[in-house]
Amino acid sequence: MEAYLDNSATTRCSERAKDLMVQILTEDFGNPSSLHNKGKEAEDYIKEAKSRIAKTLRVDEKEIVFTSGGTESNNMALIGAALANKRQGMHIITTEIEHASVHAPLAYLAELGFEITYLGVDADGLISLTELRDAVREDTVLVSVMMVNNEIGAVEPIEEAARIVKEKNPNTLFHVDAIQAYGKFHIYPKRAGIDLLSVSGHKIHAPKGTGFLYIRDKVKVKPIIYGGGQQKGMRSGTENVPGAAALGEAAAEIYEDFDAKVAHMYALKERFIEGITQIPGVTVNGRTGRDSAPQIVSITVDDVPSEVMLHSLEEYGIYVSAGSACSSNKPAPSRTLQGIGLSPKKLGATIRISFSVYTTEKEVDYVVEKMKEIIPFRRKFIRK
Amino acid sequence: MEAYLDNSATTRCSERAKDLMVQILTEDFGNPSSLHNKGKEAEDYIKEAKSRIAKTLRVDEKEIVFTSGGTESNNMALIGAALANKRQGMHIITTEIEHASVHAPLAYLAELGFEITYLGVDADGLISLTELRDAVREDTVLVSVMMVNNEIGAVEPIEEAARIVKEKNPNTLFHVDAIQAYGKFHIYPKRAGIDLLSVSGHKIHAPKGTGFLYIRDKVKVKPIIYGGGQQKGMRSGTENVPGAAALGEAAAEIYEDFDAKVAHMYALKERFIEGITQIPGVTVNGRTGRDSAPQIVSITVDDVPSEVMLHSLEEYGIYVSAGSACSSNKPAPSRTLQGIGLSPKKLGATIRISFSVYTTEKEVDYVVEKMKEIIPFRRKFIRK
Repeated sequence: MEAYLDNSATTRCSERAKDLMVQILTEDFGNPSSLHNKGKEAEDYIKEAKSRIAKTLRVDEKEIVFTSGGTESNNMALIGAALANKRQGMHIITTEIEHASVHAPLAYLAELGFEITYLGVDADGLISLTELRDAVREDTVLVSVMMVNNEIGAVEPIEEAARIVKEKNPNTLFHVDAIQAYGKFHIYPKRAGIDLLSVSGHKIHAPKGTGFLYIRDKVKVKPIIYGGGQQKGMRSGTENVPGAAALGEAAAEIYEDFDAKVAHMYALKERFIEGITQIPGVTVNGRTGRDSAPQIVSITVDDVPSEVMLHSLEEYGIYVSAGSACSSNKPAPSRTLQGIGLSPKKLGATIRISFSVYTTEKEVDYVVEKMKEIIPFRRKFIRK
Repeated sequence: MEAYLDNSATTRCSERAKDLMVQILTEDFGNPSSLHNKGKEAEDYIKEAKSRIAKTLRVDEKEIVFTSGGTESNNMALIGAALANKRQGMHIITTEIEHASVHAPLAYLAELGFEITYLGVDADGLISLTELRDAVREDTVLVSVMMVNNEIGAVEPIEEAARIVKEKNPNTLFHVDAIQAYGKFHIYPKRAGIDLLSVSGHKIHAPKGTGFLYIRDKVKVKPIIYGGGQQKGMRSGTENVPGAAALGEAAAEIYEDFDAKVAHMYALKERFIEGITQIPGVTVNGRTGRDSAPQIVSITVDDVPSEVMLHSLEEYGIYVSAGSACSSNKPAPSRTLQGIGLSPKKLGATIRISFSVYTTEKEVDYVVEKMKEIIPFRRKFIRK
């Protein structure tokens, strides 16, 4: 039996997304910039994909820009918004538990002279709204807060955060990295006061190499890639038509029967936690109910190093993650796990299990069963 | 009958590339950064794809960086190399007939204080090596010359240009936009003295949203996208594994039986030109033999505006291009056609026909036949 429980690292492409992609790769393969029918057809795929995505967010399709993925979306949002609006100020606020694709472009902006304030988090990985309010200044150009943390599934109070930021400084832009949140929550940027929102395709069963950035109408963003002026000059380069259309398909698909899908993942999470916490010395990091993300569980297994656990599970065809897996397999200490106050020892004994809508109860039971076997066995050897 | 003769705008994805892509999208869908087998398997696809591409160029696989396409490759090469080496100087040389994905990032660098020299071209679209030699200065950090012009198929003297640049200033980096050249010529950057070489996937029957940049070992380039440090920090973001593998497949495929494929395209070009020049008032722009690109023919049809020609052909299922088609269907005067000295009237009556290895003689004969019908008919109406 096999159980792929690393869906926050990446997901299998859905059949519907794949079928549409193949159709466009081999039949409707025109360039949207071509003036003939094949170009028009390709352009229509792009428009349709934007429209389908816009519907899931209740925004206008003109506010969607396709990118090559979540990392490019975050780079474009942060670098693009900071550079386009720097006259207003060069202060940026973020959290200490953001993904590297937020941290690294902010480090680049710091090189350019921007000042970055990093908000801490509590033991559940949540920012303090008071601390946020205090941090906003007249020269704060941008605030960036992730909606769902990729390592422990903490859900940040995005709507309240946006309101507080705007109350204190209406000119400050509010960016949300929604890469682990989109497809797991209803997100309505206009109601929530979000100006910029990053999404990755391959976390929601769309192909890798796809993503989008929501840019609220009238928000100024400087492009980070220049050329033929595609996507109204915001993102030059021949559009990845098959990828964009597949992303539109996957986005529409994931929001069909949405409540049932989310309930399914919460039920899996509960079932897994119930099983796994019967093992002594196993603790769950962060919140676990409806105020956490449905697809992510972070557990610390005392005295069993993450990699040992990961490879032991692998022998049974069970795939999980040690840390966040999005950071080019370099072993660097997790900012998130440090941020919630885990000791270095616990930090090194933490793994992430992440579900998808396709994950079954049987898979969850299988991994719990195997962990019940593996953990005492590994501890016996490691404690010697 | 249908004849897709707009292959320099984009190509149909090859069956082999598509099949590999589907396999990875739906079966071998791991994240290369994951530590388990599914991650390792994905990482191996990336390595294998780099190795296959490196072989076609006779370079090391470590010198290949995957991007989201030709535009990103050009942006990364130009912005990345200019910013990483600006201490050496802030002067850049290019030509006046480059693609927008070279022109636009250079315009951005000009905003940052770089000085750009634009080399003119002769009636065949070729730069002058003397003019190039004279332009290189001590503070010239970068020279960027396309290998094959996308509108008229002119082949620039890349090797001689590189030699001249390096003779005058060994520190100057030499970048080649090879987007229309790769897969149509053997290109060996090390022998040719090329430091940076941009390639796009969708021009060689790989999927859209793929491309790579060759960066010669030890050449310093600053990334333009920051994050998890993938591809040795040069291009962060989860690798587009299906896209990269499909690009590797398409690259290997296009260089199989290569001489025969190129000969086929030159034969098509000759056949087309022979047919079309029998029509009075039809002229071919630029060179036409082995010293031109095999896949591109630019023709001016006196008194028939490009768009009229394009849409007339479209009625017969024939797809061609008015101008370069890579520039987001905005009607801007072509820099290339202006550069070779076409009058505004001729410029507006020019179309591009572009072949692929899959183009047949039958298709070429069909388009010639239809043009023989259309041109006199259209002229009759337009001249009135």
